[in-house]
Amino acid sequence: MSRIAVINPNMSTGFTKKVGEQAQRIVGPTTQVLALNPTFGPDSIEGYYDEAFASVGLLSVIRELEAAPEQESDPIGGYVVACFDDTGVDAARCLTGAPVLGLCEAALRMAAAVSSRFAIVTPMPVSVRPLEHLVSKYGASSQCVVRAAGVRTLDFEGANAKAAYTALKKQAEICLADDYAEAIVLGCAGMTDIADRLTEELGVPVIDGVSAAVKMIEAMAFLGLRTSKAGAYAKPPFKAYHGMFADFAPQG
Amino acid sequence: MSRIAVINPNMSTGFTKKVGEQAQRIVGPTTQVLALNPTFGPDSIEGYYDEAFASVGLLSVIRELEAAPEQESDPIGGYVVACFDDTGVDAARCLTGAPVLGLCEAALRMAAAVSSRFAIVTPMPVSVRPLEHLVSKYGASSQCVVRAAGVRTLDFEGANAKAAYTALKKQAEICLADDYAEAIVLGCAGMTDIADRLTEELGVPVIDGVSAAVKMIEAMAFLGLRTSKAGAYAKPPFKAYHGMFADFAPQG
Amino acid sequence: MSRIAVINPNMSTGFTKKVGEQAQRIVGPTTQVLALNPTFGPDSIEGYYDEAFASVGLLSVIRELEAAPEQESDPIGGYVVACFDDTGVDAARCLTGAPVLGLCEAALRMAAAVSSRFAIVTPMPVSVRPLEHLVSKYGASSQCVVRAAGVRTLDFEGANAKAAYTALKKQAEICLADDYAEAIVLGCAGMTDIADRLTEELGVPVIDGVSAAVKMIEAMAFLGLRTSKAGAYAKPPFKAYHGMFADFAPQG
Amino acid sequence: MSRIAVINPNMSTGFTKKVGEQAQRIVGPTTQVLALNPTFGPDSIEGYYDEAFASVGLLSVIRELEAAPEQESDPIGGYVVACFDDTGVDAARCLTGAPVLGLCEAALRMAAAVSSRFAIVTPMPVSVRPLEHLVSKYGASSQCVVRAAGVRTLDFEGANAKAAYTALKKQAEICLADDYAEAIVLGCAGMTDIADRLTEELGVPVIDGVSAAVKMIEAMAFLGLRTSKAGAYAKPPFKAYHGMFADFAPQG
Amino acid sequence: MSRIAVINPNMSTGFTKKVGEQAQRIVGPTTQVLALNPTFGPDSIEGYYDEAFASVGLLSVIRELEAAPEQESDPIGGYVVACFDDTGVDAARCLTGAPVLGLCEAALRMAAAVSSRFAIVTPMPVSVRPLEHLVSKYGASSQCVVRAAGVRTLDFEGANAKAAYTALKKQAEICLADDYAEAIVLGCAGMTDIADRLTEELGVPVIDGVSAAVKMIEAMAFLGLRTSKAGAYAKPPFKAYHGMFADFAPQG
Amino acid sequence: MSRIAVINPNMSTGFTKKVGEQAQRIVGPTTQVLALNPTFGPDSIEGYYDEAFASVGLLSVIRELEAAPEQESDPIGGYVVACFDDTGVDAARCLTGAPVLGLCEAALRMAAAVSSRFAIVTPMPVSVRPLEHLVSKYGASSQCVVRAAGVRTLDFEGANAKAAYTALKKQAEICLADDYAEAIVLGCAGMTDIADRLTEELGVPVIDGVSAAVKMIEAMAFLGLRTSKAGAYAKPPFKAYHGMFADFAPQG
Repeated sequence: MSRIAVINPNMSTGFTKKVGEQAQRIVGPTTQVLALNPTFGPDSIEGYYDEAFASVGLLSVIRELEAAPEQESDPIGGYVVACFDDTGVDAARCLTGAPVLGLCEAALRMAAAVSSRFAIVTPMPVSVRPLEHLVSKYGASSQCVVRAAGVRTLDFEGANAKAAYTALKKQAEICLADDYAEAIVLGCAGMTDIADRLTEELGVPVIDGVSAAVKMIEAMAFLGLRTSKAGAYAKPPFKAYHGMFADFAPQG
Repeated sequence: MSRIAVINPNMSTGFTKKVGEQAQRIVGPTTQVLALNPTFGPDSIEGYYDEAFASVGLLSVIRELEAAPEQESDPIGGYVVACFDDTGVDAARCLTGAPVLGLCEAALRMAAAVSSRFAIVTPMPVSVRPLEHLVSKYGASSQCVVRAAGVRTLDFEGANAKAAYTALKKQAEICLADDYAEAIVLGCAGMTDIADRLTEELGVPVIDGVSAAVKMIEAMAFLGLRTSKAGAYAKPPFKAYHGMFADFAPQG
Repeated sequence: MSRIAVINPNMSTGFTKKVGEQAQRIVGPTTQVLALNPTFGPDSIEGYYDEAFASVGLLSVIRELEAAPEQESDPIGGYVVACFDDTGVDAARCLTGAPVLGLCEAALRMAAAVSSRFAIVTPMPVSVRPLEHLVSKYGASSQCVVRAAGVRTLDFEGANAKAAYTALKKQAEICLADDYAEAIVLGCAGMTDIADRLTEELGVPVIDGVSAAVKMIEAMAFLGLRTSKAGAYAKPPFKAYHGMFADFAPQG
Repeated sequence: MSRIAVINPNMSTGFTKKVGEQAQRIVGPTTQVLALNPTFGPDSIEGYYDEAFASVGLLSVIRELEAAPEQESDPIGGYVVACFDDTGVDAARCLTGAPVLGLCEAALRMAAAVSSRFAIVTPMPVSVRPLEHLVSKYGASSQCVVRAAGVRTLDFEGANAKAAYTALKKQAEICLADDYAEAIVLGCAGMTDIADRLTEELGVPVIDGVSAAVKMIEAMAFLGLRTSKAGAYAKPPFKAYHGMFADFAPQG
Repeated sequence: MSRIAVINPNMSTGFTKKVGEQAQRIVGPTTQVLALNPTFGPDSIEGYYDEAFASVGLLSVIRELEAAPEQESDPIGGYVVACFDDTGVDAARCLTGAPVLGLCEAALRMAAAVSSRFAIVTPMPVSVRPLEHLVSKYGASSQCVVRAAGVRTLDFEGANAKAAYTALKKQAEICLADDYAEAIVLGCAGMTDIADRLTEELGVPVIDGVSAAVKMIEAMAFLGLRTSKAGAYAKPPFKAYHGMFADFAPQG
Repeated sequence: MSRIAVINPNMSTGFTKKVGEQAQRIVGPTTQVLALNPTFGPDSIEGYYDEAFASVGLLSVIRELEAAPEQESDPIGGYVVACFDDTGVDAARCLTGAPVLGLCEAALRMAAAVSSRFAIVTPMPVSVRPLEHLVSKYGASSQCVVRAAGVRTLDFEGANAKAAYTALKKQAEICLADDYAEAIVLGCAGMTDIADRLTEELGVPVIDGVSAAVKMIEAMAFLGLRTSKAGAYAKPPFKAYHGMFADFAPQG
């Protein structure tokens, strides 16, 4: 039995549960999924400000997991940060030797393997530029455009769900027609059902970040790949932290 | 039971067998690996000329697999092109709806997830520039250098094995020291044992392309991801082929 | 008398003849053009699959020319690969010391010398992304867009010729208006007549790849420039090839 | 009288005082400098982990300043984040309409105006890759290299100061000689005295981030430039935060 | 008292006066602005041809200032080239140890500090590509688009002023809507009044190059930053000039 | 009979003569070469300052040629700017409908056609960064490095010639060994003899810019290619010039 942790950096326990179930459904029979979220922080992540707080929550969960007694006998083999902004991934990589993947990175890798040009369709325009930064960081700028559907994430559930889906699909169709996109990446988390429906209706691959990241981290964990400690992701050196962060001080 | 095909585009059946065994060892219990190579073409691939011929061999294997009666009941879920030059991958993607991955692409994706900067160490200088083209195509130019150890692939087996390993390790150490590399990608196929030993001796992740590609394609196949037919990888349109290639004519 | 070889990598002998005549018309009085195509392979090249087979055909023609007795007394001074996808150019450069040019590379060089921003207009959308790869490889991404007219190459002759020309011209006009393009590159081979007419009607330079490549290779041949054998284009090392490719084995 | 806030995101009050004095010394007579640091968090910032916590501290200081009664009569005209990693700058830009500048961004802008090629010399190798990310984000990759001197920041004060200075200078000389650098950017905060001495000894411009950022933000504040709220830096939308971050919830 | 020189490289003395007054208005009380233009050359700068002549005029003004007796007691601390094409800036940097800034460079730096994505709106299409070259040189290609309003610079004064403003504003609105721009840079000199009005009407930062450059050079001059003489901006070596340029010969 | 103009933008008539003879030697029997230099300006071009003055000289020569009565009957088909810095090429393209090529652009195009990676070896370090700007403008940054031999151009003739050649060759060898360069571009004009000798001694292609540019412009002139007037290279609009430049005013 091996363990994978899927961490939702925000406080939406409903989302954590949904993502955890999705993840458990797709991992192999000997893989156990831990789906967790912090005990403090924002209810959702929309932009850089929320990200700053959610990052600390993410780190708090990883610290606790790494310090737990089970780590001795059955260490966690990999972490998924269940947020399409890849919130806190760089910091998380400093905190553990296990590999860490965000949804955006994993989704872009799979999109690039099944198409030569693709698009991220994200709910709100405010995310376009931050996602473009990620696309650039992951080296996909020349083959990936980012477009916004103009709907809020929450609209995909409840009364507005149909209109939201329609807006998303319309934007995806624009990407296929005008940007020569050949595949669509959903720029928000936890939309497996939408991905399946869109794949069918558009006739091109539609990639859901949760599925991509969970399967890719499971693969990396199986291979025993570890995060390099030789450079940017080195273990944080010992130092004092103060006030409400005192307990988070790195022990070196 | 699902099926993954690992295709060695050259004629070295010894290598095909070795890679097939390695792949079968690392896939899940319900995944069956088919390890194959063409029935014609070069004994190994060193440079663009060999690649041109090996590409046709690769396509011949895929065509046969796609036309086989088993495809009905148990279609192949993904293809690995077992060559670090990613020989013929673009053409192969036109020929099948299943996803296709080369070793270089998969290894770069995993390296970028466990380090912020890494190096490909390849046997001979002649491969440096072609590999740089791949690194550029895959968007990793700003974080990946390519260096050559100055030994031939074959030297890693037999009497020169020790000297070859030493040369490779020395070049990897230069990458860590001078290029701020934090992880090493082995720029040739089928070197799992070397990867494990180097990982231990260098203290940084050392990535073997076969393992990376097999696990990543298995993940993509499990998710049901398909190659987009909406653009560059569209099914080849019907047309006549002549002479020794007559049988390869696309049926549209 | 010096000799230039213009090789059409597909089996359309009509096209070979047309391109050969065009080439002979524009070379100097002491240059002899050899226009050839392989004796096997596809009738035309549309996408990566066709390219793989056409590359082998291209190499077969070059091998034969290089081995011919005339090489002693009157060596071929340069090769043009008469295909806008620059099919097999890298492999061809390994096979001969003479310089080798594809249509796309030559056309982009001349376009960049007469405009600061230009567009490739290609017949079908399927070619957009492969051509963008070439544009990127040749370093012109920041000044060149690729657009498709939505017509098939064959439509430029026969009953649909007028409609095809109109569609191409319309797309070119969009590039001039919306993309700030200042010149047009025709993204397919053998369209000198269309280039002349479009130049006149649009009032901007319209570049035909065949003319560009033939004159540029003639210039390089005259200067005695040779393909470097010091790196990626080194002579293929000796090795065995098997089956239908046995005769193509490099002699080292 | 106008006000500029210089915020040290870590808890080193000694550094805050030093930077504040330096800033006050260089601003105009009608500019008042507020030098502040958070009341919680790490003692210094070395890598992504420390950054995550320091970002929250930075935001806490800005929130308090923005909510203070003085804002009515005498609003803060600009913020400097006094850290060379530009920790939390993006999130800070969401929180205020005043412009926000990190040391790295400001230093790179001035370096690019007095040289065509320059180098960042940073104390420890662990910072090389994070700084390269910043250099890339700020568009200076083609003219800026990052090198590490191999000394810790704290070594620049106390018993090791002389050796640390020597190591830094030596690395700077390597940049001038081997990388064709024409100017040096000090990759850590609060080193004005070293900058002056190095400028004199090396004979090239040596840029200190604190000075660059303070003067540039003063200029922007004077011009009344405000952070755009039309995209990535929009005001965070209303939502609940929980636990120890409850008070930080954006009010929309 | 310190001195800043603002040099209009063309012969429009009206513009020189206007820019000088604007500059004097925004500098600190101890800074004196010298606003000058050459005594020969074009009346305005529209494209590369005008630039070539204006560059020489610019250099003639700087030479004279550098040779003036006041330089001994009160050297000029910085130069602004008051042209959005940054005409002659590289050559000017060779001629003086004081820092030199063009309007485009300064405006892009400030735009990048208050928005994550922005647009230059320039009067005529002929400037689009030259400005894109500057954007690329300054490393802002991934976050800055260039668009033309289709009006001539002179139209912003006199009878057509209202229509010109409307055209400019309309183009700016297109940038905000279609290009996800968050701020606007005015791609021509001396439009402070338009910048203020547009900022108010569009609700996003609108940056005027003159203001940006004057305040930034004042900041750099205050810090005593000097142009590096270690590379591309080295003092021109001694040599003879002939004919009408004889007097401009560098004295080494 | 067709005419090509080779313009040396500096006043060294010895160099003009040498380049003219070289050009005449390599053009076809029906091409006449005009080798000219301005009647005013610097004796040589070393850096941006000299370039500014030489550009005006270059334009003066082109203006005169374009206005000459022979243009009616026998128009000049193309211009070569015989300087490796491509001094004034953009402005020259505005002034004539004939194509204009600098040595650097032409040499890079031919180098990229015979090697996958190459190096410019230039005499003095001061030229490294300006040449890198050209390399970037021409899109070759990923395959071309620039290095300086540390000798002055004039040293290649006279008593120091042997030492200068040795230094150049040594630097070229470093490029081949350390930068994986496969070909060498000589970063200064008029060195055909050195190119031939180096080609032989190094065993890789060594490209001389004069030969490359003359043959490429001859090819473009033959094809009737014209500089686009639709954008950046449009004819300069009518306006007044004053003082010593009064005669250069564009007539629109």
